[in-house]
Amino acid sequence: MTTPTPTPLSYEQAGVQYDLIDPLKVAAQRAAAATAAHLPAHGFAEVAASRGESAYVVDVGPFYMASIVECLGTKTLVADEMQRLTGRSYFAGIAQDTIAMAVNDLITVGATPLVVQAYWAAGGSDWFSDGDRAQALVAGWKAACDVCGVAWGGGETPALAGIVEAGRIDLAASCTGLVNPKARLSLGDELAAGDAIVLLASSGIHANGLSLARKLAERLPQGYLTEVAPGLGYGEALLAPTTLYSPVTEALWQAGVKVHYAANITGHGWRKLLRHPKPFTYRIHSVPPVPPVLAFIQQQAGHDAEEAYGTLNMGAGFALFVRAEDAERTAAVACGLGVDAWVAGRVESGPKQLFIEPLGVHFSGESLALR
Amino acid sequence: MTTPTPTPLSYEQAGVQYDLIDPLKVAAQRAAAATAAHLPAHGFAEVAASRGESAYVVDVGPFYMASIVECLGTKTLVADEMQRLTGRSYFAGIAQDTIAMAVNDLITVGATPLVVQAYWAAGGSDWFSDGDRAQALVAGWKAACDVCGVAWGGGETPALAGIVEAGRIDLAASCTGLVNPKARLSLGDELAAGDAIVLLASSGIHANGLSLARKLAERLPQGYLTEVAPGLGYGEALLAPTTLYSPVTEALWQAGVKVHYAANITGHGWRKLLRHPKPFTYRIHSVPPVPPVLAFIQQQAGHDAEEAYGTLNMGAGFALFVRAEDAERTAAVACGLGVDAWVAGRVESGPKQLFIEPLGVHFSGESLALR
Repeated sequence: MTTPTPTPLSYEQAGVQYDLIDPLKVAAQRAAAATAAHLPAHGFAEVAASRGESAYVVDVGPFYMASIVECLGTKTLVADEMQRLTGRSYFAGIAQDTIAMAVNDLITVGATPLVVQAYWAAGGSDWFSDGDRAQALVAGWKAACDVCGVAWGGGETPALAGIVEAGRIDLAASCTGLVNPKARLSLGDELAAGDAIVLLASSGIHANGLSLARKLAERLPQGYLTEVAPGLGYGEALLAPTTLYSPVTEALWQAGVKVHYAANITGHGWRKLLRHPKPFTYRIHSVPPVPPVLAFIQQQAGHDAEEAYGTLNMGAGFALFVRAEDAERTAAVACGLGVDAWVAGRVESGPKQLFIEPLGVHFSGESLALR
Repeated sequence: MTTPTPTPLSYEQAGVQYDLIDPLKVAAQRAAAATAAHLPAHGFAEVAASRGESAYVVDVGPFYMASIVECLGTKTLVADEMQRLTGRSYFAGIAQDTIAMAVNDLITVGATPLVVQAYWAAGGSDWFSDGDRAQALVAGWKAACDVCGVAWGGGETPALAGIVEAGRIDLAASCTGLVNPKARLSLGDELAAGDAIVLLASSGIHANGLSLARKLAERLPQGYLTEVAPGLGYGEALLAPTTLYSPVTEALWQAGVKVHYAANITGHGWRKLLRHPKPFTYRIHSVPPVPPVLAFIQQQAGHDAEEAYGTLNMGAGFALFVRAEDAERTAAVACGLGVDAWVAGRVESGPKQLFIEPLGVHFSGESLALR
């Protein structure tokens, strides 16, 4: 089923160099933080704890307003290649991926997503002349908005010859929502020892780790057509659309479950469980099944469990931190919506670290440097 | 000062083909409109009149929430070339341009911009290794936020090798704001015959028409170093940062001036004055001075007044429609903030059309098809 004895391939070897981006990020974060001082003149105030979280939150009085912009990344390159190989368009799924990047981040703060804006920057006007592909993008975008109950407000469809490569498209989404009532805010103030960690199933790689996944395809003799499970090709599996988690967070509030904290498991894999600044030890006692495409990538890249779980979602696309007594009900609400979920661990007093006990994996607090 | 007898160059010849984009736009607009039905489930409602306007507006009860995402376009290609020619970075101004694209659109609906998110998608991690350029981008972004009184919430800095061209960056901004109090909403309900049209000065080309401007540079013997006025080079003039108009709209509200309608004059030039769906005749009796760079482009491209004013801002970057008795005060408020302004025309009963009387130019209502 798979080719044997692969040469290891790290994320850096796959072309993403975080050290070149990070100094700029630090400067940008400092400059951005200083601008919060403008809000009181309008009668509002920043929720400072949202700096460094997945969405930015402003207290506008009767509720909190949250906003975000998120890039899809390079998953379209897989869709383009698969369209070349199969003649089919995968852009309906790609549209869902793009909205998921924004919506799944926005909901971590407790916001209900209300409005999505589309950012579709093509390498030239001719990108839009492939009618099937363009219509798939529109239909998939609309369908994802329907799942999330958000209004598609509008957007931009620039043709950027000379900036975006010919035949390619740069996709992103912005999302604005409200935390309403304000008690839904889930920035971690209530996160406490004894809380349970509920993991929600991913559909596959989602939209993080694609640079690595594409590099691996280059060295497979059958490329994206390699089987990762009987009847399931690598490219097809990579293109499984990202799960949209906002129906779960909305249903939890309706069911009376208060989410203490939430983490969208994207880049940095399970290290995202360490995101909150408070010092806690997170102990995972059971891990969800690994989707075939992620098991295949781990095997092909020669990653041990630490590298795999520190980079990819490995079957868990979203984490909810809730009171222990709410844990089973949280999982049941998600399962009722068709999203598999597991009560997978607990929050403990202790230094900031993560144990994934069934795998013998340990991540220190320093292994995630997002702030 | 300029080269003689140029060959005419249209916008389509410059590489932007609207007919390939528009069928997709129509499909997207229809799909987007249908998603408004999701908002009542959250207790909110779309402000339907904002569909087709420059920002999308939702009634969230105590105020209206407005949001938008906007692309800079290809102005960075001029900045890149000028950096090559002069060794200087122009990305502080480019940052202002990007924020202006979003903020100047958001304020047309009467919203106070509150949060900006940055979207900086580079062709590779190495874009960020030019420290001067990256720091200029950060500093310019912060400075523009300071001018507009908005909080910089965060953003994305993806490295998109294979999608964005090596050495290039795709810049966009999302902006979220509130119309507060709700009486500030300026979607044109109050637009009426007898209203005055006040035009606010542009700083130059702003960020629309750059494809045409770049094409012209290619056929100039001295390219971007050609003088458009004594001591002012073409590239330097093109890179004048876009004027930020939100201080003006905020000050007008403070001064008790109710804006009936507003138009950000970007693509389609002065035809944007025809944006509102109501049938009115717009009569301009005086035109502002034309910035040297726009006069140069008009002359070089061989455009008559109709083509120039139908494509470029020609010195007017923003239009405010106010009661006739507020017109002089509106202009005075803008001038007091350092933005030149002119009471330039009036709204009349009659079929939808625009007369620019000093130039003998007439645009019919059909000349602008944005919806």
